[in-house]
Amino acid sequence: MKILAILYNGFKAAEEEPRLLGTVENKLGLEDWLKSQGHELIVSSDKEGPDSVFQKNIVDAEVLITTPFHPGYLTRELFDKAKNLKICITAGVGSDHIDLNAAVDHKIQVLEVSGSNVVSVAEHVVMSILLLVRNFIPAHEMIERGDWQVSDIARNAFDLENKVIGTIGAGRIGYRVLQRLVPFDPKELIYYDYAPLPAAAAEAVKARRVEDLKEFVSQCDVVTVNCPLHEGTRGLVNDELLSHFKKGAWLVNTARGAICDKDAVARALASGQLAGYSGDVWDVQPAPKDHVWRKAKNPLGGGNGMVPHYSGTTLDAQARYANGVRSILENYLSGKPQEPQNIIIGLGKYETKAYGQR
Amino acid sequence: MKILAILYNGFKAAEEEPRLLGTVENKLGLEDWLKSQGHELIVSSDKEGPDSVFQKNIVDAEVLITTPFHPGYLTRELFDKAKNLKICITAGVGSDHIDLNAAVDHKIQVLEVSGSNVVSVAEHVVMSILLLVRNFIPAHEMIERGDWQVSDIARNAFDLENKVIGTIGAGRIGYRVLQRLVPFDPKELIYYDYAPLPAAAAEAVKARRVEDLKEFVSQCDVVTVNCPLHEGTRGLVNDELLSHFKKGAWLVNTARGAICDKDAVARALASGQLAGYSGDVWDVQPAPKDHVWRKAKNPLGGGNGMVPHYSGTTLDAQARYANGVRSILENYLSGKPQEPQNIIIGLGKYETKAYGQR
Repeated sequence: MKILAILYNGFKAAEEEPRLLGTVENKLGLEDWLKSQGHELIVSSDKEGPDSVFQKNIVDAEVLITTPFHPGYLTRELFDKAKNLKICITAGVGSDHIDLNAAVDHKIQVLEVSGSNVVSVAEHVVMSILLLVRNFIPAHEMIERGDWQVSDIARNAFDLENKVIGTIGAGRIGYRVLQRLVPFDPKELIYYDYAPLPAAAAEAVKARRVEDLKEFVSQCDVVTVNCPLHEGTRGLVNDELLSHFKKGAWLVNTARGAICDKDAVARALASGQLAGYSGDVWDVQPAPKDHVWRKAKNPLGGGNGMVPHYSGTTLDAQARYANGVRSILENYLSGKPQEPQNIIIGLGKYETKAYGQR
Repeated sequence: MKILAILYNGFKAAEEEPRLLGTVENKLGLEDWLKSQGHELIVSSDKEGPDSVFQKNIVDAEVLITTPFHPGYLTRELFDKAKNLKICITAGVGSDHIDLNAAVDHKIQVLEVSGSNVVSVAEHVVMSILLLVRNFIPAHEMIERGDWQVSDIARNAFDLENKVIGTIGAGRIGYRVLQRLVPFDPKELIYYDYAPLPAAAAEAVKARRVEDLKEFVSQCDVVTVNCPLHEGTRGLVNDELLSHFKKGAWLVNTARGAICDKDAVARALASGQLAGYSGDVWDVQPAPKDHVWRKAKNPLGGGNGMVPHYSGTTLDAQARYANGVRSILENYLSGKPQEPQNIIIGLGKYETKAYGQR
């Protein structure tokens, strides 16, 4: 059996830190085990264009392993060429880099390690909200360059307490964000989702659902995006929706870059319509050197909390999703049923509503 | 009556942002009110040396207003010269910049606006813990300079979940930190304090007290300092104590800079004994341009989350402490009793145990 894994390079870091399991070098810890069973494992970060390791090997691989952090984009065209492919495994959560409708049509299963990094991402969201609202980055840069002018920081620093915070998506990540925000004593927690939370879950975080998206964003001091990318959410946060935000709101998106229109966000930040934008997801990844989100700033020169896509690939998360990939492979190899919550696409059909299937 | 206030300069920011109340320009919003009553209000940021506005006017001022952010250091020598002084008011929380024993001897009251910014500081602590543990700053710097190498960030990024987090001091700020950490599912929350928390308060955050400081720090993945500066805490975190920390622990100090030995912290960071140090307090303030904490880094080039002293002077906090200063002044002018929780030094005696009086 031929297994193809597209991971990110670790270089020296991967040699020095064996817990960097999700790298080309450390191969999700799968190499010895798969080789001992006689399987072929090809691992690379080379993923773009017809001569890439990804595209050359997809034609006869039976198993494809990818990650959201350095996504191997599996298009319908590549599905057509992937004659041997049986199963796609996402090391992490979020399989939008795979054409899921094409997977359905080709009867190729798509599985994720559900839950493996939802806490990691939720923590990153809360951190990002705090650092935007409290104006952390300009403050740190001031110290590094040798200055000290408290008023230039304080003029745009606020407490999170008593603010209205809303999540677009109250699923596994969004709900964990709400849970972590409760003791910050927000004025209110609200959410926008296609389905209401179970009553007990909503009550536990005292979150109110707002059904209309424009109305929802118009009530929020802070908006955080925690929904999957699919046809219904691509470009959801655009000029038009941003015009309904409160003036000076903060926006955090660790879901997928393409949910927010990058130029619209940069414009809203430059005008002060947004006071800050933070997140770790980009369309595409790695982000080009000239991506507008790298240096977009608010009128006071702050409000940018961007990082590369790593919130879900902390060392703690890597241990969990490496284990999860192995379990999925073990089930596949031995013909055991997969954990239901890990199945995105079963044989010829969606097994989740998370990707916009109602 | 002559009132002297030592505040930080706001310059253009204070003109543009009237909510920057704690600045020289906006005078805590007190000017019109005090002038209408015929009082003299002198406000300046000029505080160092015998020719400073502070030292020249302290000789006949009846009321002194200072802040922890740009502290007017009121020494025993200055107390000896301050023949008219009756009351010192700290706009904020933390009056260690005043020689409290000298205040007792001179029968000069010292009051704070207790509680005015404890939430602000607690939020800053939680933010700082998250950004150190999750390795945020090197990640943001990577994006700004146009790079993308996830493994260089992920190799030193962790989840806060399942870590042991301990606070030195479980008072008004430290306890609020513990409350905010509960839903992050730490392995354990522990605290070191001269007094145990009331049983119900400890149970509410499931925090365990450790009575020996060395034993306490040796159990923590994250240590946060939330105690006042006094004779018993000055230099508390020194080479010796740092040697008892877990290798690679994170340290957050938003209490007072002098509680941590600055060179010992920088050494521990450079050696990797600490993975990160973050906070907003410095000994002295403004921090000199060459203060070692401005650029101290861990062996991987990260782990520095320092900012100027502003966590307790967000715009939300400024509204609260400006109001609080006015209330204290109103009580003083009308002879009404002060709120007990605001009194640090009454007439000739300590009214709090917070500054090391047992």
